[in-house]
Parts: sequence; C-alpha cells; structure tokens
Amino acid sequence: MSTFWKEYPEITEELTDIKKIIKESIKSREKYLEESIYPMVDAGGKMLRPAFLLLSGKFGDYDSKKMHNLAAVIEMLHIATLIHDDIIDDSKLRRGVDTIQSKYGKEYAVYIGDFLFCQCITMLSKYDYTTENLREISKTISRICMSEISQYHLRYAKNMNIRKYIRIISGKTAALFAICFYAGAREANCNEAMQKLLGKIGYHIGMAFQIIDDLLDYRGDTRVLGKNALKDLKRGYYTLPLIYALKNDKEKEILKLLNRPSLVDNYVDEIIRLVKKYEGIERAEKVADRYTEKAIYYTEKLPDCNSKKILREVIPKLLKRSY
Amino acid sequence: MSTFWKEYPEITEELTDIKKIIKESIKSREKYLEESIYPMVDAGGKMLRPAFLLLSGKFGDYDSKKMHNLAAVIEMLHIATLIHDDIIDDSKLRRGVDTIQSKYGKEYAVYIGDFLFCQCITMLSKYDYTTENLREISKTISRICMSEISQYHLRYAKNMNIRKYIRIISGKTAALFAICFYAGAREANCNEAMQKLLGKIGYHIGMAFQIIDDLLDYRGDTRVLGKNALKDLKRGYYTLPLIYALKNDKEKEILKLLNRPSLVDNYVDEIIRLVKKYEGIERAEKVADRYTEKAIYYTEKLPDCNSKKILREVIPKLLKRSY
Repeated sequence: MSTFWKEYPEITEELTDIKKIIKESIKSREKYLEESIYPMVDAGGKMLRPAFLLLSGKFGDYDSKKMHNLAAVIEMLHIATLIHDDIIDDSKLRRGVDTIQSKYGKEYAVYIGDFLFCQCITMLSKYDYTTENLREISKTISRICMSEISQYHLRYAKNMNIRKYIRIISGKTAALFAICFYAGAREANCNEAMQKLLGKIGYHIGMAFQIIDDLLDYRGDTRVLGKNALKDLKRGYYTLPLIYALKNDKEKEILKLLNRPSLVDNYVDEIIRLVKKYEGIERAEKVADRYTEKAIYYTEKLPDCNSKKILREVIPKLLKRSY
Repeated sequence: MSTFWKEYPEITEELTDIKKIIKESIKSREKYLEESIYPMVDAGGKMLRPAFLLLSGKFGDYDSKKMHNLAAVIEMLHIATLIHDDIIDDSKLRRGVDTIQSKYGKEYAVYIGDFLFCQCITMLSKYDYTTENLREISKTISRICMSEISQYHLRYAKNMNIRKYIRIISGKTAALFAICFYAGAREANCNEAMQKLLGKIGYHIGMAFQIIDDLLDYRGDTRVLGKNALKDLKRGYYTLPLIYALKNDKEKEILKLLNRPSLVDNYVDEIIRLVKKYEGIERAEKVADRYTEKAIYYTEKLPDCNSKKILREVIPKLLKRSY
C-alpha cells in the first residue's frame, strides 16, 4: 500500500482490514479469479475513497463492521471501473502492476469487471444498508459510466469546452468522492446538514484531484504519476489546460496542429509548448486551487474531532502534491 | 418483436409495456445513449426472460406495475450481458441488428453495458422489491459472469468434460431463467414451495435451451438461428456434442484435428462429420430432451390456470424448435 496514510496508524489498520474483506469477497472455487484480482488489490494505491468514507463516518455513530464493508464495496466499485478503463485505454500498467487486460486479454477484463460490479451489489444487499445509500451508490456508478461515455464520445471534439469538461469530471471523478463522504455520513446516522457538508467536501476534493491529474499530462513529468505522459492528448481527450489554451490562442496555432491527420510525438511537444505559452497550465492550476480552497473551507466548518484534524492535513497533502 | 408470443395477446401487450419501461429508463441528456441501445431493445428477440417472469408472477398476487418493472430490469440485465458477450465474441450482428461493439467500438460497448447494469440496480433500489430478490438477482449476475469467465478460461481445454460443461451452462443460462421464475413468484407472494417449483421449471428450461443452442452449431443450420454456425468451435468453446463425441472417439480422430495449430474450415467440416459419427449430436439431444421433459413434468404440478396453460404450450414450442 502507498505510504499516504502512514502517519495515521488507525486508518492504515482499518484499510488493511478493508483489503481483507475485498479479498474474502472475491474468493471462489475458480482460483484464477483471485489470481487476477488480488495483485490489483494488493498494489492498492492510496485507497483514498474507502479512507474518506471511514473518516466521514467518524462524524457520526461509527459501526466498524458496517463501515468497513461499505468502504470495501466502494473500493471494489472503483477497481471495477479501473479494470474497464484499462480496456478502453489499452493500459499496460496500473498501480505498478500489469493490468488485467494486458495480462489476460480484454475479453477476460470485461467479465472480471462485471463480476466485481455484481459482487458489490451482492455485498450491498447482504448488509443492512439504507435503501437510499444503495440507490445513491448505483446512481453514482451510472453517472460514472455516462461520463466515461461522454468523454469517449467527445474525443477529438473541437467544440470541447469548459462546461462540458466540468460536467465530465464531476460525473466520472467528483461524484464518487462525494458519495464516499455522503454514504459514510448517512450510514453513521449523521443529520442531513452534516451529510451534505461532508458530501460537498468530497465533491470539491474530487474536482481538484481530477484537474491536477489532468495537469500532470501537460507538465509531462512521468515520474510523478508513473503513467505515460500525454496519453490523454494522444487519445483525443481534451482536458482543462488545453481547453484554456485553445481559448487564448487567437491565431489558432494549436487547432492547426490538432487538425493534422495524425498526432505524432513532434506535434505533441509543440502543443505542450503552446499550452504553456497560452497560459493553459496556469489557468487550470488556478481552477484546481479554487476547488482545493473550497474543500478546505468546508472542512473548517466541521465540528472539531480527530477526523477533522486528519482531513485538514491530508487534503492539502493530496491536492498540492505537485505544486 | 419476434412472433413467438403472438397467440397470447395479453402477454404481447405486457411485453410492449416492458419495452417502453426499458426505453424510458435509458433516456438521458446524452442522446447517443438512446441511439445505441434502442435498436437492440426494438429488435427484442423473444423476450423470453421477462415473459417467463410475468407468467410466474401470475401464480400469485399479480401487481402489474411492480412486475413490469422487475421484468424490465431482467431484460436489461440480459441485454447488458449480451452487449459484453458481443465484445468477447467480436460479433457483428445480434437480433438482426448491428452489435454495439461493431457499430461504435469495443470501448463504447464496455461502458454501455456497465451503464445498463447500473441502471438496473438503480431501478431495483427505486421500487420496493424484497431485499431477497435484489440479493438473488445480483448473485445470479455474479454467477453469469463467473460462468462466462470459466467458459473463456476453458477455451481449447482438452480436459473439458460433461461436469464442467453442465456447471458452465447452469451458471450462464439456466440460472437466469431460474431467477426469472423465482423472482416473479416471490414478488407475487407465492409460498416457498411454489417459488421453488417455478424456479425449477425455469432452471430446466434454461438447461435445455442452452444445450439446443449449442447443438445448432453442429447441425450447422445457419437459417435456424441466424448466426454463424461453428462459431463456438472455432473460438475453442467445446460444447456437449463435441464432449460426447470425444468420449466415444477411441481412435482420437477428433483430438488430432483439434490439436492442429489452426482450425481452418476444412478441419471444422471434418470435425462435424466426426461428431455425428461418434453420436455426439444424438447424445446431446437426449440430454436436452431429459431437461425438457423435466420442465414439463414440473409444469404439470402447477395449479390449473391460464399461465399453466401457456407454459404447457410454449415450453415444447421453444425447446423442440428444431427437432
């Protein structure tokens, strides 16, 4: 697991338990199921989503078992979407390990993702969660799918704009962060105002998180993220830095490059130079900053407790990682 | 829609309403979602699964609205699995219309399938269905995925045997037919014995249905099914006729052909000849007959009513379609 939570041994311990629950729920007679999914669970990443769900639940009546199961479901849903994303993106590596699609083929990856989805629903229906959480979680996943579809549909779209971009990342990233906070709070019987406040924190973290992720592509620093830089651009996903630069580029220098039949590496370097020149990076950073500030602003409104302290520390750490 | 239910105008009418519900639930701001899924809903096929759910529900307290919604969910789940199956099988046509994967690409088809899955869960959580049905339905879909994974995993497996084959088709086909009957009965408050009896009918219909489907590949009659014959064999899916023939083929004539590095059409013709010679078709037909007889046997145990009459008529029609 990432060292992101190392200063919070209680969280690390809970996340370890959540991993155990996930592995337990995948166990089956078909050994290759475990073989293919376990490495991804073990690699784990920061496990931000389950961790945020736990932190949010701690603002109410915290029932560990219930919370850990719900957090496991959220992480499994996230893993399922990653497995399917890797098919679409033809990714070789994820969390530093071979992707299921590269190791076992796209066919296999489709079914493994589906299987995980279903296991999540089975788990949700097994424990006594509120129908509202079940409904909200499935609506969120619908939204993620729809946003991924929109994003895919808008590849190479010259009419991509800020509004469309914001809608896509709200749906594909921020909605899941929001539901983590929201579902954690609701399952812990927080009152409605508290649920909404926590949900807002999640939403703003998610927005900033995605914009920063998209920025990394243009900073071109592969060391930071460990994934191929410029992948999005080459695949025709036009993200915020490019959208801003296109707006400022009255000479349409960038557009001319984008219109070339194939986007070879030379052009890509040139596009990055132009995105910098037309202040695309600067402006996108400012938007990310605004979302981060709002997340912090809402966090300050929370009642004092250990969870608030942790959120105060980790939000800037997470969202200013590359500033 | 197929003419399968044309003698039962009340069922046809209800199925038309179910199509409407499905279309309604897919409606969204993103018009291309509808555009890509509607043709598949309209093509429709026989809509066996929702129809069986309705017929089963009529053995209890039949609440049309509740039943139609549940039947719509079942059909949507079925469509979602078909969309993902078409990715794996690289199919060009389904129900006589272009598959989503062939028309829009595999990437798109992955997300469309996921989206439909999620819409199903959202619908299930919206109406007041029993938690047990929700759990059983998601478990069934898990099983379908696992069986598809097993089937994929066992491609070209020389140790494929009857037991494995039966397990796979139980999971990927019969379980869904069973849950249609079971869920319909439970939602209509049938007693447990009745739920089980109806579930058993569904299971046996599903088993016979899949074996007959697999038989078509070896009868090589493309007119009956409208899909490419021999697809399964070429993809390394060894089904019941082949498994039986392999057992009887002491000279290992078939095995020698299967072991050739590439299965060109000439070999395939020869394999079909050998499967016939070693009584693979005959024996598989007998197994299908036994499942059909059992489905009819359990149907006879049902209390007399219009639904029983319809089941009595359609089961032989469905399962003896090519005898």
